[in-house]
Amino acid sequence: MTKQAIQDLYPDQFSHCYGCGRLNDAGLKVRSFREGEECVCSFAPRPEHTAIPGFVYGGLIASVIDCHSTGTAAAAVYRREGREPGSDPPLRFVTGSLHVDYLKPTPLGPPLELRSRATEIGSRKVVVETDLYVNGVLCARGSVVAVKIPESMFG
Amino acid sequence: MTKQAIQDLYPDQFSHCYGCGRLNDAGLKVRSFREGEECVCSFAPRPEHTAIPGFVYGGLIASVIDCHSTGTAAAAVYRREGREPGSDPPLRFVTGSLHVDYLKPTPLGPPLELRSRATEIGSRKVVVETDLYVNGVLCARGSVVAVKIPESMFG
Repeated sequence: MTKQAIQDLYPDQFSHCYGCGRLNDAGLKVRSFREGEECVCSFAPRPEHTAIPGFVYGGLIASVIDCHSTGTAAAAVYRREGREPGSDPPLRFVTGSLHVDYLKPTPLGPPLELRSRATEIGSRKVVVETDLYVNGVLCARGSVVAVKIPESMFG
Repeated sequence: MTKQAIQDLYPDQFSHCYGCGRLNDAGLKVRSFREGEECVCSFAPRPEHTAIPGFVYGGLIASVIDCHSTGTAAAAVYRREGREPGSDPPLRFVTGSLHVDYLKPTPLGPPLELRSRATEIGSRKVVVETDLYVNGVLCARGSVVAVKIPESMFG
């Protein structure tokens, strides 16, 4: 049995995202998994995802942080509400703001390993902080304000 | 004669970036042009660059802001130094931090129109602020701290 990612539970109409949509075959297919109160993600950059040769493109790092953070926000709110992820009504977050600090040049080759947690959970907004490691070295930090899509938008 | 973009002037070894490298055929090929003290960029998202259907993926917006901002930083420093862009020693910036506020859902279809300016120019760091419009509507704002690659890294 394949392990289920948070993104596998998104309703179909919200599963076309270039970053994490399971229905977007041209996309990055970022997948996030719950691990206690945190969420983790492992992402393998492609050879073309270069910045300066040998290092990962910052826009890709921002993209993976973005989608992993909105997934983490959904997981955190399901947990706060004592609900199984994917149970009705579905939770889907979009990004209100994104901040990335590039702490070190990120080597291109090994997977990016992300670890995120929700640090503030409001009724509509969730703040998610992320550490991004390569080979165990902290290379970037992200902070995302994720905003809940209103239930009225679900078909 | 094709108009020359700031990115056309980057040394070859720094022209492989997924976001703006003219030598990265799988990449986005972001191109930035000087317009007085500002720099402008027009970028056409591809159909797969979707977030929720009908809207542009936030990670793509972050990527375009990223590369347009480092280009704007280079242009601003050439200008400050009274030099022609591309003259020796070459200037190339990377991203130290990236912040994006997503003000409105950005419709997918028309080009993204970016307008950037350097608001602080230090000896190593340049702060670049960007407004991103679609159909004349301000959809996102970016703020990037761009960091100069030391001359010693140029071959």
